[in-house]
Amino acid sequence: MSIFNTITKPTLLLDEPTVRANIRRMAAKARAAHVVFRPHFKTHQSHEIGAWFRQEGVRAITVSSLDMAEYFASAGWDDITVALSANIRQIAQMNALAGQIHLGLLVESCETVAALAAGLRHPVDIWIKIDTGTGRTGAAWDQPDSVVRIARQAAASPNLNLRGLLTHAGNTYTAPDPATAASLFTTSSERINHTRDILQSAGLGPLLVSAGDTPGCSALERFPGVDEIRPGNFVFYDAQQYQIGACRFDEIAVALACPVIALHPERGEAVLYGGAVHLSKDTFAFENGRAYALAALPAGEGWGAPLPGCALTRLSQEHGILSMPGEQLDSLRVGDLVCLIPAHSCLTAQVMGHYLTLDGRWIEMMRA
Amino acid sequence: MSIFNTITKPTLLLDEPTVRANIRRMAAKARAAHVVFRPHFKTHQSHEIGAWFRQEGVRAITVSSLDMAEYFASAGWDDITVALSANIRQIAQMNALAGQIHLGLLVESCETVAALAAGLRHPVDIWIKIDTGTGRTGAAWDQPDSVVRIARQAAASPNLNLRGLLTHAGNTYTAPDPATAASLFTTSSERINHTRDILQSAGLGPLLVSAGDTPGCSALERFPGVDEIRPGNFVFYDAQQYQIGACRFDEIAVALACPVIALHPERGEAVLYGGAVHLSKDTFAFENGRAYALAALPAGEGWGAPLPGCALTRLSQEHGILSMPGEQLDSLRVGDLVCLIPAHSCLTAQVMGHYLTLDGRWIEMMRA
Repeated sequence: MSIFNTITKPTLLLDEPTVRANIRRMAAKARAAHVVFRPHFKTHQSHEIGAWFRQEGVRAITVSSLDMAEYFASAGWDDITVALSANIRQIAQMNALAGQIHLGLLVESCETVAALAAGLRHPVDIWIKIDTGTGRTGAAWDQPDSVVRIARQAAASPNLNLRGLLTHAGNTYTAPDPATAASLFTTSSERINHTRDILQSAGLGPLLVSAGDTPGCSALERFPGVDEIRPGNFVFYDAQQYQIGACRFDEIAVALACPVIALHPERGEAVLYGGAVHLSKDTFAFENGRAYALAALPAGEGWGAPLPGCALTRLSQEHGILSMPGEQLDSLRVGDLVCLIPAHSCLTAQVMGHYLTLDGRWIEMMRA
Repeated sequence: MSIFNTITKPTLLLDEPTVRANIRRMAAKARAAHVVFRPHFKTHQSHEIGAWFRQEGVRAITVSSLDMAEYFASAGWDDITVALSANIRQIAQMNALAGQIHLGLLVESCETVAALAAGLRHPVDIWIKIDTGTGRTGAAWDQPDSVVRIARQAAASPNLNLRGLLTHAGNTYTAPDPATAASLFTTSSERINHTRDILQSAGLGPLLVSAGDTPGCSALERFPGVDEIRPGNFVFYDAQQYQIGACRFDEIAVALACPVIALHPERGEAVLYGGAVHLSKDTFAFENGRAYALAALPAGEGWGAPLPGCALTRLSQEHGILSMPGEQLDSLRVGDLVCLIPAHSCLTAQVMGHYLTLDGRWIEMMRA
């Protein structure tokens, strides 16, 4: 029986062979480029999918919270970087983890280094978070005096093992094409290496460089000046990544199957049971505006090509409004399923909380 | 010890006295206006908070999914309307519920009525969903022939007990002020009554009218032409409601406490550990753009007034970027907590999954 016959409500489908291929391809790329592959597990947040990475030789991972580090440590992962500037209110949780596993933390200020130095009872790896121009957070790459001060203070603290500099070129997510993403990634790498050179000249080091966002890691084959890459989203990809050319459509590995609950042919819209509580509320550039998801129809044991001119253009708590050209709408019936390709798969996985594989198996995730 | 000393990571605070006062006020208003109060429970999704409604005399509720109906039925609620156009793929779940409780369903097409008539084994209440002009979904109020067809078909189906017409004037959420929200609500009520009159003249009925969104129900004291109201968000309110004047600031009952992880005084920003995975990603009009949350500081066993000129203006998966005037930023330290007033409390509650009361008690929610 088709998986689609069993689906009654919004369900996050996961195409396991595509996920495994995405993992295998990025792992092979990292090996060929001689960089450590430390994938970000915040996208899938699943023990089982983590095991698929292990089968491809991955031993070191990135997560976005200490809770997520605990979750993966409980499945045997013992080399985990928490890629969010350290939250000094969680020192007790850091100590509990650092006593069990090899824990990496990010710092970007002397205040945080001082608090960690005073509070940590076990050694941790320290990465200085560098802002190479995206303006989200991190010590500015072009203010090396400040970075030197942070590095000296970390190097002088017994439990802080200064490993290197870490950045996230988040501006690649809005690059118009892969060449621009590659160029932004390269500029970011050059800048962080400039900062690394200054620190190493000041006697700090040797220092590693950790970088890597999905658009940059998808666009490039080599990563000069980078010692480890940390892409996460590539495991599933999504409409944002497809739209900027970071992936092919058939490399997208998740889709939210949603029932049609109403048709409004007079305005070219179908209403889906599937809203912000299922999809989250991120967007990508679509035609002259923004959309929440692309749409495809069930096809065999998966979903077909994206329906041309069709996207989820409005989204309330449980309703999704799908804009469709008339000829497509004519063939849709109340009770049919539409497969939505989310704008941002990380957030959709997070709100859904589990996956259904195309062969009908539930995969669990970490729950808060 | 202050509740704030125990908080180490993003935590959704709930001010129980304010929640109870919001419930009591709306229940009293419904009694005075002689309308049934059938509050929407999708905002809080909690057995315990549901019990606070019961203490104010509430016996009938609204939910947004059959799963949520099951969750509240398991706590003894036995009169539940699922306020989403019926999803005919879930007839088995409808049958299971309709065998236990008084279940209300929404229809807006003859196709759905036919599927329910064929599949339901127990009586259910049927409400025809009417679009009174918001353009989300529902049968159009100004196409009464279509509504009459749906009503006749429902009335002819043994297990479908046609109760009335239901609308949601969702356009009040973007009203600039309470007077406009009241006016939109009133227009919506007049339109649905026009449709009701036509149906009743055609011998269908008597029919009830169910209406009610938080902005309209907050702005008005009387609801002419309306038999029941279904507001939900008023239980917590949020920055959207505050911004349109639907509530006072001290009527907002939830705030997301987030640790400061970095300060960037040179650009007037603080970085919080608190992102889209904690807050969700809805916005409200702020100054010349949009923002994700207002901000306040911990004050006693709660939070203080909104910090002037301050809002969460950027939001990624785990980071929130707070724009702050310099003098406020000067007094903030890494490790401090900031209380964010979410744009849309329903979505924030949904992603957080539980609440911490200001006296330190955890309140659980339904989990998907």
